[in-house]
Amino acid sequence: MSLASLQAVVERDQTAIDLVVKILAQRFGERFSQAKALREQHGHTTTWLPNQAPDGVVFAHSTEEVAEIVRICAEHGVAIVPFGTGSSLEGHVNAPAGGISVDLSQMNAVLEVHAEDLDCRVQAGVTRKQLNEYLRDTGLFFPIDPGADASLGGMAATRASGTNAVRYGTMKDAVLGLTAVMADGRIIHTGGRAKKSSAGYDLTRLLVGSEGTLGIITELTIRLHGIPEAIAGGVCSFADVESACNAVITTIQCGLPVARIELLDALQVRACNAYSRLDLPESPTLFLEFHGTEAGVREQSELFGEIAADHGGGAFTWATKAEDRNKLWQARHDAYWASLGLRPGAKGVSTDVCVPISRLAECIRETRRDIEEMGLIAPIVGHVGDGNFHVLVLVDVDDADEVERAEQFVERLNWRAIDMEGTCTGEHGVGQGKMKYLEREHGAGLDVMRTIKKALDPRGILNPGKVVLVD
Amino acid sequence: MSLASLQAVVERDQTAIDLVVKILAQRFGERFSQAKALREQHGHTTTWLPNQAPDGVVFAHSTEEVAEIVRICAEHGVAIVPFGTGSSLEGHVNAPAGGISVDLSQMNAVLEVHAEDLDCRVQAGVTRKQLNEYLRDTGLFFPIDPGADASLGGMAATRASGTNAVRYGTMKDAVLGLTAVMADGRIIHTGGRAKKSSAGYDLTRLLVGSEGTLGIITELTIRLHGIPEAIAGGVCSFADVESACNAVITTIQCGLPVARIELLDALQVRACNAYSRLDLPESPTLFLEFHGTEAGVREQSELFGEIAADHGGGAFTWATKAEDRNKLWQARHDAYWASLGLRPGAKGVSTDVCVPISRLAECIRETRRDIEEMGLIAPIVGHVGDGNFHVLVLVDVDDADEVERAEQFVERLNWRAIDMEGTCTGEHGVGQGKMKYLEREHGAGLDVMRTIKKALDPRGILNPGKVVLVD
Repeated sequence: MSLASLQAVVERDQTAIDLVVKILAQRFGERFSQAKALREQHGHTTTWLPNQAPDGVVFAHSTEEVAEIVRICAEHGVAIVPFGTGSSLEGHVNAPAGGISVDLSQMNAVLEVHAEDLDCRVQAGVTRKQLNEYLRDTGLFFPIDPGADASLGGMAATRASGTNAVRYGTMKDAVLGLTAVMADGRIIHTGGRAKKSSAGYDLTRLLVGSEGTLGIITELTIRLHGIPEAIAGGVCSFADVESACNAVITTIQCGLPVARIELLDALQVRACNAYSRLDLPESPTLFLEFHGTEAGVREQSELFGEIAADHGGGAFTWATKAEDRNKLWQARHDAYWASLGLRPGAKGVSTDVCVPISRLAECIRETRRDIEEMGLIAPIVGHVGDGNFHVLVLVDVDDADEVERAEQFVERLNWRAIDMEGTCTGEHGVGQGKMKYLEREHGAGLDVMRTIKKALDPRGILNPGKVVLVD
Repeated sequence: MSLASLQAVVERDQTAIDLVVKILAQRFGERFSQAKALREQHGHTTTWLPNQAPDGVVFAHSTEEVAEIVRICAEHGVAIVPFGTGSSLEGHVNAPAGGISVDLSQMNAVLEVHAEDLDCRVQAGVTRKQLNEYLRDTGLFFPIDPGADASLGGMAATRASGTNAVRYGTMKDAVLGLTAVMADGRIIHTGGRAKKSSAGYDLTRLLVGSEGTLGIITELTIRLHGIPEAIAGGVCSFADVESACNAVITTIQCGLPVARIELLDALQVRACNAYSRLDLPESPTLFLEFHGTEAGVREQSELFGEIAADHGGGAFTWATKAEDRNKLWQARHDAYWASLGLRPGAKGVSTDVCVPISRLAECIRETRRDIEEMGLIAPIVGHVGDGNFHVLVLVDVDDADEVERAEQFVERLNWRAIDMEGTCTGEHGVGQGKMKYLEREHGAGLDVMRTIKKALDPRGILNPGKVVLVD
């Protein structure tokens, strides 16, 4: 697949890289490695984008160490690519200019939990599941749940969300403050622990979603939520995707405070049945969850039942037991892997878009028509309460014509979402894969992004070739 | 009161200003004015900061006109100060370098309402009350309500919030996208109508709270909410401020989805009784409101009743009729004017801070001790569900000693909030008045803010002398 148009033309100075490699090897000993397998594992591994491995990987243990690494790289003009768990989908961790991958996975300490303020401070390598495990006895939880068990630093860097975002927001809302290392090695602390502030520019939200191109996030102050007194959830089948979407639209427009409302199309349900041993009817299905008091979730469930019936939805299958619910949601989280099982040997080309909720049914209908007309295999799954959905095109990479059709399909989907006043990515981020869509989505705003990148990283060493290109 | 330490040293080029004045007078005719009264009304008028009038005021009618004005000023290096309703409290609209006030109040059209997506697009001069009036028949409302009937552009520029923020968030959460004119006259559109996006740097939230120093907001896409099916509200008195605060802390920690929870100390209640003809007991009082279904608000009210009783709160006085509730909330919004009535002739020195909720009772207790020990008259009122509160020190400006004490008091309060991991302003913004606190609050982050300011406004013409100073 031709990536020429997607990728940065980033300069690579082998002499400088060799020097930095020597310095880091001496300074970090066994925590620095140039082993091929490790380097490739630190390049892009999760979808069809080619792997571009860094020249070396260093495992940092503290913000100060990250700052030291950045200063060393900055002095010699060598690229730095921050790495959490490597679960991003748009080539965020590739190293097109070579350089050093800074792996933060060993910075995995939960530093403080302030249960009384519903917040905590963590190192960037803590994963979402690790945090929730740590919080188990506090009555609190962290709701943001991308498909993978990603690191919180990586989730902040890509402005991740997930199935609970319709009620609890995205990383933009969850992050109260950050510690970050800037391109010159300076350490800054943004935001704070107050629930709101008007004290100056919002550096927290400038760094959230900047994908390591403006600074390297090393610690986060994160908002938590009380575990709801009651949780109710279940599944509801519909005759077609449009009816399911219309039920979602009505739910959101009614202001029903649904905690999760996820769409799986018939093909995705088939994949999940096989992969996660479910026995759902193979038709478009909504997975739902309500959070609140006992009376509240009962009321919400009943209201949704009426809405579903109005749109021809089948009877609910309510999962009252926590283990049944967990099985359903684990299946939802495994949707990506389940889909790959539909066509063994195929590569999954993953893409996500987000549109205003009123355009959701139309956008999915046109997308499904494309899938059929272009002869592709591509299940749809989505956080439809936010107008956000994913398509995973399963491609035989040895079939040039199919690859070409898949590429066209993805492009058409992204243009369509932008033209519907939506965005080319609701939660995956830009990385390398979505750079070509930003001009149409942001217009002159893209120049402002470039100006900010140049000002904060004048030598262009932080995760080069991602998000925006500068001279 | 000495402001030397607060204000920018901003250069003023009278020759350039005279030239720009001539160009604008010719171009805009009667929509450009140099009348003294109008100029002074466009400088700071709302508290103790001295008025610094611009050299001329131009009333813009479109984004393109604002861009034209900016290009004219940019060409000659003349300062531009955006103006909405002039209700900001920290000198945001002062013109320390002279120059041109761009008044956006006549850009007051609601451009689009997408009821089906719960959003709308407005010009920056639309005020919050005007928007809600416009929305009256749609079943939707806009919840963010600073004390004044501010313009939405100004509210975005200062990252405003108000009494509903504990449930509905602040302008940071309400603004989906912006149209802004940058320092070189470029027009950019940020964000969009999708509920979430990971497509690049968050320019929307960089501009929200930038107080006109990075760009002039001319249009906004704003998130709306459905008017709740049921609203319940009322007041509850406490023996002391600490008990009231502790009731608030428990309410938030329990996850009770209160829509409004406001504290008025005894002095503020006395002021409101007099100004708004209420007859509340003159002791610390919480104003509350719950939004939801009929059953939901009943359940929330009962839960709060139990919490209040645990903290020695008096019996609720529930306002079941909408007109009674509106009278209460109007009184709350008029608290600023009511306070001024406590000491006719005095100037009100208004300040706001925000701390983690667990520190709220302690912060208010220490603040009240300062008020008493320093012999000041200063009612406290606050959005305590967010840990945010306001103090209005009523100062006899002819009493130098009292002025000195008031200044010391405000400083001590701001340092205290920052030292409690809070912020020097929860919602008023920095303007001129809070600049001196940013170094302690942000440390090296302040340099990053300066770098951004320099990159986006290299000549320093956009609202100079506010937020950050650059060379």
